[in-house]
Amino acid sequence: MIRIGIVGAGNVGRNLAQALQRAGIAISWVKSKNLTSTALLTDELGTRAIANWTEFEPVDLILVAVPDKAVQEVCLEAVQFAPCASVSGTVGIQDVLGTYPIGVFYPLQSFTVNRKIDFRSVPILIESEHEELRKLLWHLGRQISDTVQECSENDRKHLHIAAVFANNFTNHLLYQAERYCEENNVAFELLKPLITETLQKAMEIGPKLAQTGPARRHDEETINEHLTKLSEPARAIYRLISDSIEQTYK
Amino acid sequence: MIRIGIVGAGNVGRNLAQALQRAGIAISWVKSKNLTSTALLTDELGTRAIANWTEFEPVDLILVAVPDKAVQEVCLEAVQFAPCASVSGTVGIQDVLGTYPIGVFYPLQSFTVNRKIDFRSVPILIESEHEELRKLLWHLGRQISDTVQECSENDRKHLHIAAVFANNFTNHLLYQAERYCEENNVAFELLKPLITETLQKAMEIGPKLAQTGPARRHDEETINEHLTKLSEPARAIYRLISDSIEQTYK
Repeated sequence: MIRIGIVGAGNVGRNLAQALQRAGIAISWVKSKNLTSTALLTDELGTRAIANWTEFEPVDLILVAVPDKAVQEVCLEAVQFAPCASVSGTVGIQDVLGTYPIGVFYPLQSFTVNRKIDFRSVPILIESEHEELRKLLWHLGRQISDTVQECSENDRKHLHIAAVFANNFTNHLLYQAERYCEENNVAFELLKPLITETLQKAMEIGPKLAQTGPARRHDEETINEHLTKLSEPARAIYRLISDSIEQTYK
Repeated sequence: MIRIGIVGAGNVGRNLAQALQRAGIAISWVKSKNLTSTALLTDELGTRAIANWTEFEPVDLILVAVPDKAVQEVCLEAVQFAPCASVSGTVGIQDVLGTYPIGVFYPLQSFTVNRKIDFRSVPILIESEHEELRKLLWHLGRQISDTVQECSENDRKHLHIAAVFANNFTNHLLYQAERYCEENNVAFELLKPLITETLQKAMEIGPKLAQTGPARRHDEETINEHLTKLSEPARAIYRLISDSIEQTYK
């Protein structure tokens, strides 16, 4: 049976630990600076907390699920004790050298407290120069997800940039829409079924084919009417994205 | 029993006719210039097509579901024969005067051929200066949807502008993300579970609270690194929306 130690008891560590345990993998211990979230997680898992490395108990893998700025430092400690994998999508591991090998086990999803995630749909992106660790990470990934892929640091960076557009920026446009509704006393709520359908459609047939709206049909009259009703920064965003759509379909 | 005539056999007309018939409302006839889609719809409904107004058979309401540029002309004809409602969200009806009253019966959703829509979740926005027609539109709306609201032309325009942000523009950002993935040989597919989760979260807790990403945490180092990897127009979009996010959370 595979035994795992987890450093970090935040959203990612907690979600991963729960998914792994449900798949029959033993979580031997949890190590985290936050005593409240550590207690919560060890209670849920029925496992023990360790306060520092002197209490270390042998495991096959240590998963490091700490904030990005602490990843390298914690990994440098962990690789003195067991093979180790960082769950961060952004931090590189090439500088982490120790007694045991290092890798990446990155679940490409946004985790929020108290929001249930279907882990089988979450892509797990793995990386390691060490073949045996790579095989272990692959095996672990397959226990909890339908999608496991090897992915280099460079490709993870590309995915991160694409995710900024597809997630952070789309979210901000929803915010701009909500704000405009509030300013003009119409209910943003009314748009939700339309938002859901539009995005489901984009994912099914692809966003290039799914594009609709005034800029798509080069309807300058409607675009100009809309611009007169908007204030900054919404107006600048409307103009730039409309231009980009018109260029795409010219 | 309420009897309805429908002008237009496109996506909106077809979806509305099907939903109304399922709710037990009689579709007496369909009138459309497109003979193929008319035949398809009258077959589905088990009703008859009329080629011109001389074949008109009395109904309680004529629903006009034609392209925006033809709405006013068709409504001006239809109000000679029966009370009439346009299903367009953008065209005003204040200039349509005739024997019978005019109104708006606007389902706020994007309809696509062969995509099933749960009509009960589609908001129906109604408008009429004529009280009896307004009551009929309200009653009809309630037969097929859980959300029926009165909505002025001005408020429909505001909702349309918000929808351009929330739908057309978010879709274009998904396109920019997909394009960046293709240019850099990473699979856009991997981002889909993240996109779904991010947007569900935005709709549940609101986009202002749901915002994450480099601009939200004022991480200039990551923003500048991302900008060096992007080409136009993606770079200009990245910069403008990041600035807008930073302003929002400063």
